[in-house]
Amino acid sequence: MLNYNGLSQRLLAADYAVRGRIVTRAQELEKQGRKITYCNIGNPHNFKQKPMTYVREVLSLLEYPDLLNKNIDNLFHSDSIKRAKYVLEQIPEGVGAYSASAGVGFVREAIAKFITRRDNVPANPERIILTDGASKAAQTVIHAIIKNPNDGIMLPIPQYPMYSASLTLAGGLSIGYYLDEENHWQLNEDILLDSYNTAKLNKLNPVAITVINPGNPTGAVLSYENIKMIINFARKYNMAILADEVYQENIYTKNAAFHSFAKVMHDMKVDDVTLFSFHSMSKGYFGECGHRSGYLEIRNLPDDVFAQFVKFQSINLCANVVGQVATYLMVTPPTPEDDSYTQYINEKNCILDDLREKSIILGNELNKIDGISVNIPEGAMYAFVKIQLPEIMKYQSVDVALDEIYCMELLEKTGICVVPGSGFGQMPNTLHFRTTFLPPKEQILEFVHALKLFHQEYTCQEKRI
Amino acid sequence: MLNYNGLSQRLLAADYAVRGRIVTRAQELEKQGRKITYCNIGNPHNFKQKPMTYVREVLSLLEYPDLLNKNIDNLFHSDSIKRAKYVLEQIPEGVGAYSASAGVGFVREAIAKFITRRDNVPANPERIILTDGASKAAQTVIHAIIKNPNDGIMLPIPQYPMYSASLTLAGGLSIGYYLDEENHWQLNEDILLDSYNTAKLNKLNPVAITVINPGNPTGAVLSYENIKMIINFARKYNMAILADEVYQENIYTKNAAFHSFAKVMHDMKVDDVTLFSFHSMSKGYFGECGHRSGYLEIRNLPDDVFAQFVKFQSINLCANVVGQVATYLMVTPPTPEDDSYTQYINEKNCILDDLREKSIILGNELNKIDGISVNIPEGAMYAFVKIQLPEIMKYQSVDVALDEIYCMELLEKTGICVVPGSGFGQMPNTLHFRTTFLPPKEQILEFVHALKLFHQEYTCQEKRI
Repeated sequence: MLNYNGLSQRLLAADYAVRGRIVTRAQELEKQGRKITYCNIGNPHNFKQKPMTYVREVLSLLEYPDLLNKNIDNLFHSDSIKRAKYVLEQIPEGVGAYSASAGVGFVREAIAKFITRRDNVPANPERIILTDGASKAAQTVIHAIIKNPNDGIMLPIPQYPMYSASLTLAGGLSIGYYLDEENHWQLNEDILLDSYNTAKLNKLNPVAITVINPGNPTGAVLSYENIKMIINFARKYNMAILADEVYQENIYTKNAAFHSFAKVMHDMKVDDVTLFSFHSMSKGYFGECGHRSGYLEIRNLPDDVFAQFVKFQSINLCANVVGQVATYLMVTPPTPEDDSYTQYINEKNCILDDLREKSIILGNELNKIDGISVNIPEGAMYAFVKIQLPEIMKYQSVDVALDEIYCMELLEKTGICVVPGSGFGQMPNTLHFRTTFLPPKEQILEFVHALKLFHQEYTCQEKRI
Repeated sequence: MLNYNGLSQRLLAADYAVRGRIVTRAQELEKQGRKITYCNIGNPHNFKQKPMTYVREVLSLLEYPDLLNKNIDNLFHSDSIKRAKYVLEQIPEGVGAYSASAGVGFVREAIAKFITRRDNVPANPERIILTDGASKAAQTVIHAIIKNPNDGIMLPIPQYPMYSASLTLAGGLSIGYYLDEENHWQLNEDILLDSYNTAKLNKLNPVAITVINPGNPTGAVLSYENIKMIINFARKYNMAILADEVYQENIYTKNAAFHSFAKVMHDMKVDDVTLFSFHSMSKGYFGECGHRSGYLEIRNLPDDVFAQFVKFQSINLCANVVGQVATYLMVTPPTPEDDSYTQYINEKNCILDDLREKSIILGNELNKIDGISVNIPEGAMYAFVKIQLPEIMKYQSVDVALDEIYCMELLEKTGICVVPGSGFGQMPNTLHFRTTFLPPKEQILEFVHALKLFHQEYTCQEKRI
């Protein structure tokens, strides 16, 4: 029988805290009847965020095209019907057939046009690959570019641990660089250089740098200048860039704006740094995580190298086609003359306004708690919350990270499930947790209140020492 | 800029002939306006096979649940409506939310019941993982169980090259064992032993054996006794079994029946051989390839090892949820009291009868061509066709496999796209190609006719020498 020792060391070593021990315990408690608030994961529909009607109308018609031959005018917006018909003209075989490995042609073209519209830069449909969510896009890239055991990818600290886990699975090394918490989690050139030099000293070979913008778990939005600095840095040290831009629609403050790496690179006239950028329908105002819908756009890559990425995808056959069409709908929203336009805009604004409000409430309320502080999230769906414990508590465990103990006890006492900062990485001698601000407002207020009481009690427990 | 030499050796070495050079050339020709018959891939909806209405009705409602509050009785079967409501009771968050890593709980339970119903053996929902198609299930297992560079998995020759490609990507070695073409492509214990011993002599470590039943590309169905032999063999040499059973519904002759490895293993009271079995909605009478819907069932595996498989899945977040629900619908078809039952059975029989008829037509007609022979497919969707070339032609190329030259020329001359046997592996000094029998009957007859003329001309060309 296969046993633990028969498993790949890479698999055993991989760690994905977002669905780790604390979540497993939360599920156990839930089975026992406890009410759990899952703040561990950015899963909007789980918090009753409704899907965009337009998207679902079209997908519904594509699942059951016979409807198009029936009287459905009172059930669907007229442009949804038109759109479904258009999709079926493009793929008469429907959503049940494998697509080409890189994805359905007209979807790739629509994505290229979307990028051009967004950034006012040219985009090549032949450099776009449809994927089962952005995670798969990132994993494809990581697996492709890790060649030797000393190859590594520079990852932010804190990072989204899908990156480190996938890198471990691919046999590569994580080369962490700290984000600057005191400076709204921007990247800092000195810190990057320090991280790079330390890696080189240790005989590591940094082949790429990963940047998540807007940030997960930090909620930070990078400035144009910061992105420019990163591109110059990658260029100087001959690294590819992995730009995780899945939260590009999730920006909540007027002081920040989304700048794609593609746009900045184009402005800089840089054409010799390979850029992999990822986008997804799981976030934004869609929140369609369950559809596993996403894409990879690549710039500055020779044809023969791109062909290898397509081959990689072909071994997986293709991304799920419903998800591919969903991505198409993401990049071609209704226009003002469309029947569904008003409802679309209302739904979109409602979701984004709500997220904006909650990001501020969560940030402000957390900052009122003694021993807890946070950079108010400017984007994405998370806050990376700093917790301070009495000096003496810092020596109480050697086996388990202090913030994991904290989060586990928070779960046991309050039913709130968050992810310890150690799962994302953090500056030594600091402690954090990540929480989403997706729950309804009242629940966020309850959350903060419960956290406050918990934190007071937790930090006072003389018996813990 | 990233260049070819910067790519992973494993990726460069991986080869997936089903979507390889010949298909790429076919797509080029198609762009130039040539009519191409894609017989390279088992993609039923591409050949106008219609999806099962029941499945699509329910999925349509789940994409747009607002329909359930409207008057839709004349648009959907009543049991489809009931079923959609039931699914939404189980997952009120709908298909747009991430599920648990291993998949939606009620789907896992339904699959376990399906296995019990099919095989009359107990099945544990806690050992089932929902995956994006069966390929992903196989890839997860392969990545998990390849530990050292000399670890290998025994693969049939001919095999479905997703296996060898995924094994290469995982850093493992293919240990081929020949299927017995003279004996309806069954497995042969002496050949297995010979392959195993040769591997051991070469310091390889066979950790598992892959069996595809019904066979891809062979179209063969394994006998109960043959499966028993394989289980005993795996047990004796301490190997896990990867049982690819995605074609279990595709059996066309009364002389053959599907026996699952789970069932045979249970009958034999073997409880110390780890069994990974894969099923999918891409084949059978569903043909829902585009939905990337499938599952992995594992037997005889300790809890701590299974937990690692779930962790693996968690790094990918989860399988697409529409696909998961589709799998649920596959394993819970309508029952006689249901409104949609009659139509369901009619559609199912129509698809399977048509495939049966086409498997026989293709087999019989091919066998009439001089220099071409085939085991008439008993199952799956393919025939693995033997071609004979004049002795003197066998020395005409050293760089490219002879059957690849043959298939490329077949494509150029006739527009028929098939996959050369060398892409699947074959006995030395034999040549084959794989074709599906999915195209409509008339197209199959045209195909055979064109092939006959081509083969005559090809084998006569004195100038080729």
